Amino acid sequence: MRFAPINPADLNFIEGSYGRKPDLPATPGIEGVGTVDALGPDVSNINPGDVAIPLGPGGTWAETIVRPAADLLVLPPSIDLHQASMLRVNPATAWGLLHSRGQPHKGSWIVQNAASSAAAHCVISLARHLGLHSLNLVRRPESAAACLAAGADIVLTDDPSAPAAAAAIPGFSPPSLAINAVGGDSALRLLNLLAPGGTMATYGAMSRQPLKVPNGLLIFKDLHLNGFWLTRWLAQLPPADVRSLYATLASLVLNGSIHQPVAAIYPLANLHDALLHASSSARNGKILLDLHSQL
Amino acid sequence: MRFAPINPADLNFIEGSYGRKPDLPATPGIEGVGTVDALGPDVSNINPGDVAIPLGPGGTWAETIVRPAADLLVLPPSIDLHQASMLRVNPATAWGLLHSRGQPHKGSWIVQNAASSAAAHCVISLARHLGLHSLNLVRRPESAAACLAAGADIVLTDDPSAPAAAAAIPGFSPPSLAINAVGGDSALRLLNLLAPGGTMATYGAMSRQPLKVPNGLLIFKDLHLNGFWLTRWLAQLPPADVRSLYATLASLVLNGSIHQPVAAIYPLANLHDALLHASSSARNGKILLDLHSQL
Repeated sequence: MRFAPINPADLNFIEGSYGRKPDLPATPGIEGVGTVDALGPDVSNINPGDVAIPLGPGGTWAETIVRPAADLLVLPPSIDLHQASMLRVNPATAWGLLHSRGQPHKGSWIVQNAASSAAAHCVISLARHLGLHSLNLVRRPESAAACLAAGADIVLTDDPSAPAAAAAIPGFSPPSLAINAVGGDSALRLLNLLAPGGTMATYGAMSRQPLKVPNGLLIFKDLHLNGFWLTRWLAQLPPADVRSLYATLASLVLNGSIHQPVAAIYPLANLHDALLHASSSARNGKILLDLHSQL
Repeated sequence: MRFAPINPADLNFIEGSYGRKPDLPATPGIEGVGTVDALGPDVSNINPGDVAIPLGPGGTWAETIVRPAADLLVLPPSIDLHQASMLRVNPATAWGLLHSRGQPHKGSWIVQNAASSAAAHCVISLARHLGLHSLNLVRRPESAAACLAAGADIVLTDDPSAPAAAAAIPGFSPPSLAINAVGGDSALRLLNLLAPGGTMATYGAMSRQPLKVPNGLLIFKDLHLNGFWLTRWLAQLPPADVRSLYATLASLVLNGSIHQPVAAIYPLANLHDALLHASSSARNGKILLDLHSQL
């Protein structure tokens, strides 16, 4: 393996609060990129030296992994390895979230919170690529510039003034899709921003607060609340569709349409520091592990 | 008009907390039964003396109403007029709720709270008619007998012991549909009782407490939260389907498969007492207005 990011889901996995718990001992890491060292006897279409990402179950925080050939997606050798190490989770999550209501309508709006996260930046970039407009809520106003650089139409501070501020912006119309990674009061703001009949898809819970949903928003405003878990979503897609999706996403990474900022890169020997940095709330970008530096 | 019930939605309508607010002055009453007094010049298929219910907008708490012929559904003259006055709302609500996930699978389970209400009794009866099993949560244990008489499979007290008690019952399997008329902690119990991938449909908020939804139930358990509002649901059905639905429901009332208990009947002159009685939480059955007693 060459590089693997530290994702919030990795931290949840380590602390036992993720959706599935492995038998111990277990290797963390749900994504990463590597180069092919050696092949089994029956493998074709893959060559030693190929750049590839594992699409199957995790365990990527390791110098070497052994996988069935069918679990690997070979990438163009010119792809940026840092970006490739983050291809499996966030870009696919963003794609799945934006298709929560089926094929999105060009020109329509979406709204999301936690908009400074790497996953949210993928949502912004993909929304722009799909012809959608995005309203983005950030906790810290200084995150706005990076969201706008990624293609955001509107960035607002995630506080009680946001719904009124959004309504006052010319050209804005209430979204039919909200993407929630926070929970609590922030999620309630998303529900209030949604158009009648709209859907909120929840994929994270950064505030660790449950959703608080006035019954009338369900009964009379006809809002729909769903969850999104990449593992489950991919599992119900035909394998050929999964590979085709990742080929599309890889081409968007190659042409720069999807770019996730990197805050720092640590050798595996400094994992402790890397985890502390990944857990801090004020970083701007992903923490990557360099799994090759000690070979 | 002959009889009209006092529904929770009528009380909400009067206090201004219903999904739509009328221009004042307005006549309350979203359903009721009457006999046809007189016809306009172009009306056929309806005769003076016919028993009929209005399917259009409300205003039924009145001695006489004038409606387009297309809004009336003529019923068999042998139908119980008390039951007919309650045909439009609760039986159709129960039908719509039970079809929240499409055509329900015979033999599957549903769970609901507020199971002693008239709407919930219609859910129990219709679930039985459709070949479904129902788990019913009631606030007061003394309500259990009436639920069982209506066709309930299981009745439990709506407290923190309910999920474990249900799981221990032989033959019970987690429902894929929960029907919520309470909100707050009771709704959270329903979410915990649901099978993974299940749906909770909310049509009432008796506790006046918002839903409290742990994000993980959406992300990892894949639960779906929707609302149900009869007015909206009927509006998106083709008019012929609406009439066909009510013909089916009327036949179930005629053969006794659907029966809503009546607690008391008041003349319109005693509306004040009737409203107080309808607002009390300890009654067993609907309060009806007798709109004919003073003619």
